[in-house]
Amino acid sequence: MNKMDQKVIELRQEIKSKSPLIHNMTNVVVTNFTANGLYALGASPVMAYAKEEVEDMAGIAAGVVLNIGTLTAEQVEAMLLAGKAANRKGVPVFLDPVGAGATPYRTDASRRLLEELEITFLRGNLGEISNLTGEQIEMKGVDSKDTRENAAEIAKKAARMFGTNVVITGETDVVTDGDSVYSVFNGTPELTKVTGTGCLLTSVLASFCAVGSDNLLEAAVCALGFYGIAAETAAGQSSGPGSFQISFLDQLGTIEDNKLKQNFRSKKEE
Amino acid sequence: MNKMDQKVIELRQEIKSKSPLIHNMTNVVVTNFTANGLYALGASPVMAYAKEEVEDMAGIAAGVVLNIGTLTAEQVEAMLLAGKAANRKGVPVFLDPVGAGATPYRTDASRRLLEELEITFLRGNLGEISNLTGEQIEMKGVDSKDTRENAAEIAKKAARMFGTNVVITGETDVVTDGDSVYSVFNGTPELTKVTGTGCLLTSVLASFCAVGSDNLLEAAVCALGFYGIAAETAAGQSSGPGSFQISFLDQLGTIEDNKLKQNFRSKKEE
Amino acid sequence: MNKMDQKVIELRQEIKSKSPLIHNMTNVVVTNFTANGLYALGASPVMAYAKEEVEDMAGIAAGVVLNIGTLTAEQVEAMLLAGKAANRKGVPVFLDPVGAGATPYRTDASRRLLEELEITFLRGNLGEISNLTGEQIEMKGVDSKDTRENAAEIAKKAARMFGTNVVITGETDVVTDGDSVYSVFNGTPELTKVTGTGCLLTSVLASFCAVGSDNLLEAAVCALGFYGIAAETAAGQSSGPGSFQISFLDQLGTIEDNKLKQNFRSKKEE
Repeated sequence: MNKMDQKVIELRQEIKSKSPLIHNMTNVVVTNFTANGLYALGASPVMAYAKEEVEDMAGIAAGVVLNIGTLTAEQVEAMLLAGKAANRKGVPVFLDPVGAGATPYRTDASRRLLEELEITFLRGNLGEISNLTGEQIEMKGVDSKDTRENAAEIAKKAARMFGTNVVITGETDVVTDGDSVYSVFNGTPELTKVTGTGCLLTSVLASFCAVGSDNLLEAAVCALGFYGIAAETAAGQSSGPGSFQISFLDQLGTIEDNKLKQNFRSKKEE
Repeated sequence: MNKMDQKVIELRQEIKSKSPLIHNMTNVVVTNFTANGLYALGASPVMAYAKEEVEDMAGIAAGVVLNIGTLTAEQVEAMLLAGKAANRKGVPVFLDPVGAGATPYRTDASRRLLEELEITFLRGNLGEISNLTGEQIEMKGVDSKDTRENAAEIAKKAARMFGTNVVITGETDVVTDGDSVYSVFNGTPELTKVTGTGCLLTSVLASFCAVGSDNLLEAAVCALGFYGIAAETAAGQSSGPGSFQISFLDQLGTIEDNKLKQNFRSKKEE
Repeated sequence: MNKMDQKVIELRQEIKSKSPLIHNMTNVVVTNFTANGLYALGASPVMAYAKEEVEDMAGIAAGVVLNIGTLTAEQVEAMLLAGKAANRKGVPVFLDPVGAGATPYRTDASRRLLEELEITFLRGNLGEISNLTGEQIEMKGVDSKDTRENAAEIAKKAARMFGTNVVITGETDVVTDGDSVYSVFNGTPELTKVTGTGCLLTSVLASFCAVGSDNLLEAAVCALGFYGIAAETAAGQSSGPGSFQISFLDQLGTIEDNKLKQNFRSKKEE
């Protein structure tokens, strides 16, 4: 898929020049990292949670990210308001069902958001997405314990069940609309040692989709490859999880085009 | 204004020796960065939000910072309680109207705080302050899209309208009480690539005012120069937005007096 | 106490291999730093606050950490639910009474949690613990101004009064169950220049206790020594509070066994 190593460079450049506004309703653990990651990428992050303003903010955004990592009942209502406002305005909505399956509350809230909103992309780990499709996969808090190698099947099932595009991230990432399936092989285990790398990825995905709306699956493949290559590069320059996090933010901002070109590893499976 | 390059050194030293307690009611994106920035500077940060305790905490602080970056209705009430307690005790109050103009909710909340409280300093970007004075400036989330070069006029208008001192930050920073106007020319574009640099600046401003209350405008000029020089120095030592953030925290704590002396660039305009 | 320098290596290894799930209900300032510190250590952090799910999450955790740093009334109720669920399931509960004594609200909330829950460890600075036992020690926000050298006596008094194990951290750390007393001499002043180092320590303590439940006091001594040595090592490699924080996270993940062995400094006092 030679095409992708060109497309990732173009989309990344477009994010820098257009600076799409991404409205994040995310958990309290990762707000700072998410905002800094988006600024590094060249996107324009905003966080807004109050039911009095989320419809206004979602309506002017280029993408809305809903993340249930530290959900409260009040936030579910605000997310529904924001999501419906985005749907009315044609602004794409991204759902990150952090810890779905870890508690019934998270599973139920995720399903409610999937039912009541038009979600452009659902992005989670294998455990989270499996639990949403009705399998009983054990979670370790917000981390998946699922080690099966059928991510593509689960992703397609979820895409069809909820009528949305799906990304499952793991050692290999999978992208699907329920029919076509892409795999992306970039990334590094260091990503699992820093909190919020999944959450930030969902916001990076929103940024790539904002400038690549003509083909959302390819935009997602580019987002995953870009993110993984930035992480690989950072891992080679750091001496532990603290310096990896910092180096990763640096790479999100500064990674060179030729590194993207040389290291992109993805494949159209179906 | 040779005087300032001496004064900044004195005030910075006084912050380190007196360690003023700054009570921050700030947004969830920047709490950690704000606390670490204040600790680095030598001030003593505290965060408290509950209506049950904000009056007690504000009453013992050397400065109270109200930041509406992720405001909720409940927080507006708590901010009013804290602000009124501070006003009763003569504790200066600083307002950071993050994203005023981006949504009506933020504009209205900022105006209500300005009306019901005595604010010592209002600190924002040009878009935020312009929207508060009634102009219709387009915002990009919490970032200003205003590129006009009349920051001094807008700042004076806001100062007179709301009966407060005003700082507008941008490529050139402006400080005014509605009559006198100072410009500060320090800073670096890297500050716009890290979330919360404006928010932290408002808390740094509160720290300088806590030890420089005999002349608040000069204290503000010193805060802006100090902050900008720390950022310039950090920019010269970093390789992206992640390492800039870390180097900036280092510089807030360790920057040498002679660097402050040599690099301070400010001017009394009127 | 040569035994401890072996035990710390074993417990640290067990954390890496078992990856205990630590459920943190902590303040908004330190959530990210806490999660990253636990990931670096090899533990598995989760944050959950909603009353609809905290009982489920606490019930599957290996330790529950309650931290009142930015408490609200709603969170007190959720903490009581989580704590009681943990008590029913035999999951140890750790209380960090951030700023107890700074406002009556914090003191009262801490006492209520101590009364209504079985707390495995109470961990605070000297000012916080002293205020809980009824002394009137002046606080500077959340930082202690107590300089007396009777931490062991205060700790024993608190342990007996509340029926819990107690850790008081400071230049010398003290661990007690009300009878036996251990001192730990590791650490560095840089820890006081980064927000959340006390909070993260409480979660690290929970991690060590999760794998060292056969002797909780010794597990606590190991946690304190490990944490202090990681900080000492980081201090030798950093050039300010920003880079210290990052280097500290690196060391939590990567510090070598022989460094732990050579630098552990603790003593059984009584």
